[in-house]
Amino acid sequence: MNIGVLGTGMVGQTLSGKLASEGHEVVIGTRDVDRAIARTEPPRPGMQSFAAWHEENPEVRVGTFAEAAAHGEILVNATSGTGSLEALRAAGAQNLGDKILIDITNPLDFSRGAPPSLSVSNTDSLGEQIQRAFPEARVVKTLNTISAPVMVDPTGVGGGDHHIFVSGDDADAKAEVTRLLGEWFGWRARSVIDLGDITTARGAEMYVALWIRLMMGRGSPMFNIKIVW
Amino acid sequence: MNIGVLGTGMVGQTLSGKLASEGHEVVIGTRDVDRAIARTEPPRPGMQSFAAWHEENPEVRVGTFAEAAAHGEILVNATSGTGSLEALRAAGAQNLGDKILIDITNPLDFSRGAPPSLSVSNTDSLGEQIQRAFPEARVVKTLNTISAPVMVDPTGVGGGDHHIFVSGDDADAKAEVTRLLGEWFGWRARSVIDLGDITTARGAEMYVALWIRLMMGRGSPMFNIKIVW
Repeated sequence: MNIGVLGTGMVGQTLSGKLASEGHEVVIGTRDVDRAIARTEPPRPGMQSFAAWHEENPEVRVGTFAEAAAHGEILVNATSGTGSLEALRAAGAQNLGDKILIDITNPLDFSRGAPPSLSVSNTDSLGEQIQRAFPEARVVKTLNTISAPVMVDPTGVGGGDHHIFVSGDDADAKAEVTRLLGEWFGWRARSVIDLGDITTARGAEMYVALWIRLMMGRGSPMFNIKIVW
Repeated sequence: MNIGVLGTGMVGQTLSGKLASEGHEVVIGTRDVDRAIARTEPPRPGMQSFAAWHEENPEVRVGTFAEAAAHGEILVNATSGTGSLEALRAAGAQNLGDKILIDITNPLDFSRGAPPSLSVSNTDSLGEQIQRAFPEARVVKTLNTISAPVMVDPTGVGGGDHHIFVSGDDADAKAEVTRLLGEWFGWRARSVIDLGDITTARGAEMYVALWIRLMMGRGSPMFNIKIVW
């Protein structure tokens, strides 16, 4: 499958590498290809630089946001939350078309230091902003409630017995994303909870404020929540 | 133990009734005692009126916010989020003193209809506002992430294998509340996660935006989350 992944951070790297290793044709999109490939400093302590990652994952083609968006039958938005709308505008509405846009972003605002607050929340969400800016695209918010390694290997946490969410206005797109999460990463269909329309992305994004504190307390992002009843 | 519970809604009723049934001396506080006792309409469909509840729970004394606060060695804030600061001012800083104030409120704002948004979130929380307004009181935010019946009977959901949180600036107060949650309602100590200082109440309160959507999807508030790692 042709997949366009926007964003070269930890989420973009992890998903692109996993998808390419399964034989998908992946283009990872960035603002400035030459600059991205030349980037030898890690984005965060403990992570590898994009240059090092790129060398280890030569099967993932690096392109502009527009090239990645044009390439993909399915698109994954893994850009930083505060840069997402700009990245998607660079990708171009004509390249997004009415494709499924899997939106993994969180609107994290580090301008006041860590832990971050959210740049949009409560009465709006980044998922909604993206859907409003690109009304033809079929935005499905998902995976934003977990760390990248858990996204691509749910069984790595509690044997996979925990939940993620999908939010979006297009029921078929949510069903297709749920199917793809299973096919790509092994998510069981019963682990994927449909929260409702795209306004429910507020809940999924606001939960991240709790996730951050749990992560800080545990000293590890390798966890998730299970809904128990 | 002498316990003051502020608020006569579902949370106040459920906790007061449970605590009194275990032999504690409970005063439930409200703005206007006569009006509360005369209230024959249920606060929400499916709930009983305060008058009917009061008749079934005669061992819970009804008093003003100030009387309940003066009575309790430990105080429970179960008022509605938007009315909390006013209720606590009516209770009086001198009656709150340096007592432990278990804060169960959520700043739910229904002014735009349902589902509610939060009247404070992201860079502040109701827990913090209360702690700032009453700096001597030892505020511990907890139980706000679950429905009242689950608060007093954790085993009623998934055999009790799920988590709640405590947020607060006073480590001894959090430890004491964790102990009391076990003694009063059967919460296992390992089910109570200390998120950190009172600013972590933001995460616990913002999670409620997700909780509301999960509740709407399930059609029942009888669930909770378990942190899985």
